[in-house]
Amino acid sequence: MKQINVGMVGYKFMGKAHSHAYRDLHMFFPKSVRPVMKLICGRDEAGVAQAAEQFGWEGYVTDWRELLKRDDIDLIDINAPSDAHKEIALAAAKAGKHLFCEKPLALTLPDSREMLRAAEEAGVKHMVGFNYRFAPAVQLAKKLIDEGRLGQIYHFRAWFLQDWIVDPSFPLVWRLQKEIAGSGSHGDLGAHLIDLSHYLIGGMTEVIGMSETFIKERPLPTSMTGLSAKGSKDADAPKGPVTVDDATLFMSRFENGALGSFEATRFAPGHRCTNSFEINGSRGSVKFDFERMNELQVYFTDDAEDVQGFRRVLATDPAHAYMDAWWPAGHTIGYEHTFVHEVVELMQALEEDRQPVPNFVDGVKCQEVLEAVDRSIAERRWVKIDEV
Amino acid sequence: MKQINVGMVGYKFMGKAHSHAYRDLHMFFPKSVRPVMKLICGRDEAGVAQAAEQFGWEGYVTDWRELLKRDDIDLIDINAPSDAHKEIALAAAKAGKHLFCEKPLALTLPDSREMLRAAEEAGVKHMVGFNYRFAPAVQLAKKLIDEGRLGQIYHFRAWFLQDWIVDPSFPLVWRLQKEIAGSGSHGDLGAHLIDLSHYLIGGMTEVIGMSETFIKERPLPTSMTGLSAKGSKDADAPKGPVTVDDATLFMSRFENGALGSFEATRFAPGHRCTNSFEINGSRGSVKFDFERMNELQVYFTDDAEDVQGFRRVLATDPAHAYMDAWWPAGHTIGYEHTFVHEVVELMQALEEDRQPVPNFVDGVKCQEVLEAVDRSIAERRWVKIDEV
Amino acid sequence: MKQINVGMVGYKFMGKAHSHAYRDLHMFFPKSVRPVMKLICGRDEAGVAQAAEQFGWEGYVTDWRELLKRDDIDLIDINAPSDAHKEIALAAAKAGKHLFCEKPLALTLPDSREMLRAAEEAGVKHMVGFNYRFAPAVQLAKKLIDEGRLGQIYHFRAWFLQDWIVDPSFPLVWRLQKEIAGSGSHGDLGAHLIDLSHYLIGGMTEVIGMSETFIKERPLPTSMTGLSAKGSKDADAPKGPVTVDDATLFMSRFENGALGSFEATRFAPGHRCTNSFEINGSRGSVKFDFERMNELQVYFTDDAEDVQGFRRVLATDPAHAYMDAWWPAGHTIGYEHTFVHEVVELMQALEEDRQPVPNFVDGVKCQEVLEAVDRSIAERRWVKIDEV
Amino acid sequence: MKQINVGMVGYKFMGKAHSHAYRDLHMFFPKSVRPVMKLICGRDEAGVAQAAEQFGWEGYVTDWRELLKRDDIDLIDINAPSDAHKEIALAAAKAGKHLFCEKPLALTLPDSREMLRAAEEAGVKHMVGFNYRFAPAVQLAKKLIDEGRLGQIYHFRAWFLQDWIVDPSFPLVWRLQKEIAGSGSHGDLGAHLIDLSHYLIGGMTEVIGMSETFIKERPLPTSMTGLSAKGSKDADAPKGPVTVDDATLFMSRFENGALGSFEATRFAPGHRCTNSFEINGSRGSVKFDFERMNELQVYFTDDAEDVQGFRRVLATDPAHAYMDAWWPAGHTIGYEHTFVHEVVELMQALEEDRQPVPNFVDGVKCQEVLEAVDRSIAERRWVKIDEV
Repeated sequence: MKQINVGMVGYKFMGKAHSHAYRDLHMFFPKSVRPVMKLICGRDEAGVAQAAEQFGWEGYVTDWRELLKRDDIDLIDINAPSDAHKEIALAAAKAGKHLFCEKPLALTLPDSREMLRAAEEAGVKHMVGFNYRFAPAVQLAKKLIDEGRLGQIYHFRAWFLQDWIVDPSFPLVWRLQKEIAGSGSHGDLGAHLIDLSHYLIGGMTEVIGMSETFIKERPLPTSMTGLSAKGSKDADAPKGPVTVDDATLFMSRFENGALGSFEATRFAPGHRCTNSFEINGSRGSVKFDFERMNELQVYFTDDAEDVQGFRRVLATDPAHAYMDAWWPAGHTIGYEHTFVHEVVELMQALEEDRQPVPNFVDGVKCQEVLEAVDRSIAERRWVKIDEV
Repeated sequence: MKQINVGMVGYKFMGKAHSHAYRDLHMFFPKSVRPVMKLICGRDEAGVAQAAEQFGWEGYVTDWRELLKRDDIDLIDINAPSDAHKEIALAAAKAGKHLFCEKPLALTLPDSREMLRAAEEAGVKHMVGFNYRFAPAVQLAKKLIDEGRLGQIYHFRAWFLQDWIVDPSFPLVWRLQKEIAGSGSHGDLGAHLIDLSHYLIGGMTEVIGMSETFIKERPLPTSMTGLSAKGSKDADAPKGPVTVDDATLFMSRFENGALGSFEATRFAPGHRCTNSFEINGSRGSVKFDFERMNELQVYFTDDAEDVQGFRRVLATDPAHAYMDAWWPAGHTIGYEHTFVHEVVELMQALEEDRQPVPNFVDGVKCQEVLEAVDRSIAERRWVKIDEV
Repeated sequence: MKQINVGMVGYKFMGKAHSHAYRDLHMFFPKSVRPVMKLICGRDEAGVAQAAEQFGWEGYVTDWRELLKRDDIDLIDINAPSDAHKEIALAAAKAGKHLFCEKPLALTLPDSREMLRAAEEAGVKHMVGFNYRFAPAVQLAKKLIDEGRLGQIYHFRAWFLQDWIVDPSFPLVWRLQKEIAGSGSHGDLGAHLIDLSHYLIGGMTEVIGMSETFIKERPLPTSMTGLSAKGSKDADAPKGPVTVDDATLFMSRFENGALGSFEATRFAPGHRCTNSFEINGSRGSVKFDFERMNELQVYFTDDAEDVQGFRRVLATDPAHAYMDAWWPAGHTIGYEHTFVHEVVELMQALEEDRQPVPNFVDGVKCQEVLEAVDRSIAERRWVKIDEV
Repeated sequence: MKQINVGMVGYKFMGKAHSHAYRDLHMFFPKSVRPVMKLICGRDEAGVAQAAEQFGWEGYVTDWRELLKRDDIDLIDINAPSDAHKEIALAAAKAGKHLFCEKPLALTLPDSREMLRAAEEAGVKHMVGFNYRFAPAVQLAKKLIDEGRLGQIYHFRAWFLQDWIVDPSFPLVWRLQKEIAGSGSHGDLGAHLIDLSHYLIGGMTEVIGMSETFIKERPLPTSMTGLSAKGSKDADAPKGPVTVDDATLFMSRFENGALGSFEATRFAPGHRCTNSFEINGSRGSVKFDFERMNELQVYFTDDAEDVQGFRRVLATDPAHAYMDAWWPAGHTIGYEHTFVHEVVELMQALEEDRQPVPNFVDGVKCQEVLEAVDRSIAERRWVKIDEV
């Protein structure tokens, strides 16, 4: 096996990020199995045709079913809106295609479990798009924990703060509609925090949450690209109800005894994309903030008494994961590189005939927590993860 | 009224901080009514005698009741360990003395209410020692909120992180014993966060908490000063049970609709004294960290599009509360100055014949939240503040 | 004109950075004229063949003269070691090819002037690779100055600090040999600072410098990639003399009256790539550090009195140069993106039939300052720029 | 010897800072010899009488000669404007009084040498007020260097940036008049940097400088306190010439081979009091910024490869100089504490019958550099320190 032929469903924000990863992979990781950008799929022909040309796909289709019929396609990359994930994944698994699905896996926990089961029954490889794991600074945190350099973990606290919908005239885009997005800040932002906690700390035993929708209705959208969109500022413009959460917080207990604290909100002015966590252990601590994604703050209790302090580690040295593929030390990388690294893992797993990590098991595990939190909010009580 | 004669109970960490405030007040705030350091009280005669001489008190006594008999004493300052607050306060109020009591007011909510009632019935002035309100950067946050410059408040998140007992050989000092301290991180650190939230955001309606004692037993102490202490590292040294929480987290809803998130822990390596909060409103945000207590990070949504960002405001300009009393702009102040400002307020209130702020009402309000959180932990459910 | 056919000389660090820029341009800037990666050239056939395949060039050659013979090549990209720039550029200009040359333009000022003259006489377009201009945060600094938002400029201070050769066993790579590199920290790092000052502040009138080579000789290299290399730690290993400066500092006066302070060193442990400047003007200040290249610190004197402070502007909003081509606000970019933006400018200039900026005029201007500083060091006196 | 009787000349900014140090010393350093605040002296009787009462001096005089006549005064503290230092110091030495003189020692190098000679001939103790040495974070830097933990020193770069006179309507206060202040940013701010470099790195061999007065004339002052003052914004208000430098920069070589870079300016908007330095050595680096005076950034080259980074050391632990006298770890101190520590050293030296450090030798050494820089500016050439 020397290359993997990819068919991709979706061509917006995530479609662009994934395309870039496929496109640049060989240049920086030449020893990796090489993804070949075969076909991209979208319902709007003009849109997908333009994306195909711009991103460098060999061709495009407007019905994802066509991808499944093609024998020369090995992997289906699903980054369409969340409500479409399940149907595509089930069919693709049945067709024997490997799967790379954006998070959240599905709108509900049962759906995500069905997806996992389908992939397992079909015997295909499956990956879920928790890209933040692949920031070298996050990989460093993982390494320090695994090597015991932080000792026993006491605390995991994390927050994903954004501010793109603080303005009440920001329109009612699909991410604010439950039937398409599944949830708001919880599934969009909180899901990343939950996965990071699973990756770094392990499983949870119980949770309790709280959520709020601060702006109850918004003008209907007139245009949208990425996370930016325009709505009418006219007070008489037609409006619709916001059906997802603007902010969701929850506390948790981890299996290893650590205490967890999570906050996801789109109502934090000044925070464009603060995906941040801190971990405290008996031997040290680490802090991460995605807005400075090349850095990890690291503290060790056994440093000499007079020079104890958080170190700002710029995770761009050859000693840091993936970094010898890029530039000399001190030359930072950006958001899109997390996807390149993610695809490195995907290609490597396919080459080694093993499941990539994170895979649908991780996707389901994340969804379990999302759902347990939702239930804890609805029922105003602690919910055990194994209840859901 | 030109001066206030003070009798003080307690001479350790807080006793020193208060003494310094009385001592320096006139030098920097010469227009203020002047506190006179009459008598300091402690049970250990050698200790209190030395403190009296060192801190500059006119004399000392070993029984606080003697302070109450003295006609020339106007104000009783109570900073003995928390379990002694109530008895002293009740007697002092009865003796017609004004009260300045360290936080937490008492070990329990009923006790603190009894203290408030006693003070009100005696018609004396009463202040509670939430000194962090008096950092100029915190005062700036308050001003921005009061003037509407942050708009409607959506989020208050706060954490008070310390690391002085992470080492399991750190001994079982009084702060780790429930019968003396009342609680651990919750009452010691969390109380400050709760008060700051009351000051900045307003009252809460309901809470739910979680807590943990990571190290269940510790060696008995052999010596202690301030927060530092020595215990035996000998594994066979006599030990005792830790009866307070090492960490307590809780979530809350505020009366104004904001969501609250609180975390107090003594198990966060690298954090010597991170008393920190962030507030997000519809028009802006602020961030504070006591380890950089002269700074407030401030963000406004209506800044020009290309230069939006958190401003690091060094709150040492004449435009900032209390700062024209100190040094030129850019010359920072330290921890002890919060107590000086606190006493400025106390003296001013006495002069104006009004209650100082914060007073026992605030102390009780804080204790209500502490107790509601405790109950929510015990009963594993949301507890409304008006339940307690 | 819809596309530009490129022939490139060099395939190491800069060759990779340029290749990536050509490769990704269309994906993110689809309206731009498109560079076509025709031929890459290197003397080592195995090396260049591998680079051609890895980076995505259509073919390769081992003699750059072959590029000039090809009618279908429009642009020659020169990023071979500095001592080769001149000969290639002169021949390419003569052959009517447009030029894109890495900095420093040449080893000496006369050589760089000859290159400029040749390009002008041939009537071709010419660009020089001062890529740091193209960081959006730097572009924002430029915009603020041009719009008068910083007022009259008083100070420009800049430092480029690295630490990759602090270890005395680091070997004698080509960058440490005067005959190939021209100079050390001065031409490699200082050149970027000088160009940034020209871009942001304008021309200088006089300079005086100081330099030092801390480690006088080093082991001969056994291997090298990018900026990392291995030498022998064996004390008896063969050594050679370091013939360039480890550090060069200089002061300057600008035509507009501002004072300049420059420091370039490879002996600053902890600084992997601190390319940093600060500008103070009558109405405000800005600070930049390439290790946090997405950020610009901005201060305005006319902010309200109580909230004055440096703002941390994350230059990833649509309001910032080039950023609407990438990801949503808050999603940072990395080092390589500066080259993509550089090529955007190059392509746009070619389309509009104008000289790109920065071009060889800027390259010469930079070299004038480098040489004036060198002379000021040799003669221990202030040297006027128009002396050289 | 149990106490030292002090007579002090000057009662403004520095007078207040020194008074506070005397006042608080015993409370925090009870084992120290105790300064007794005997007499304060100022020419304006109303002013000095008020200062005496406010700061806590036993009495006041309006002619400093009276202090010298008093047998019960051991130490003369001189913090009057710089032009008065010499006369007072000479007479006080002659009268057998110990000397504590604010920096700069005198307006000229010969004057400062005369002061040193007088003190030596009289056999009295002499200290000069370079208070920044006494920040615990600076003491930590010193300790790391002395213990060899930074290795051989390559670079010292320092800048003292302020912004209090950026506004052209700020009036012509005494600090802007050469005949009283001696110099502007150079002697006021640069002097501190020079002394810090002497303390941390050692002596210099040669210097070359550059300076500028950006605003040539200013309105006459109508009032002044500390560094703040009011002038008329009326364009027709009477004006006078600014006769000192607004900014002075210089480069230097140190005796140990390190390169020095210094910048002092009052024209750096956003910098209220950025007294900052960075030191790079073969084994590590440190960074200090007075606006965060409790912190030292520390980097070691021998940290493990994957966790190298500047540590933010909060110098408030018992392991840090002077800090066990104050509060628990993490509780910061402020500007005025540097003076308390300075007086601790002064008292200890008097007790041990040795010269305090820094003393007039250090004052003269600083003045030598100031003068060498001045000469280098006037003569536009490198000046050796031993020329002056």
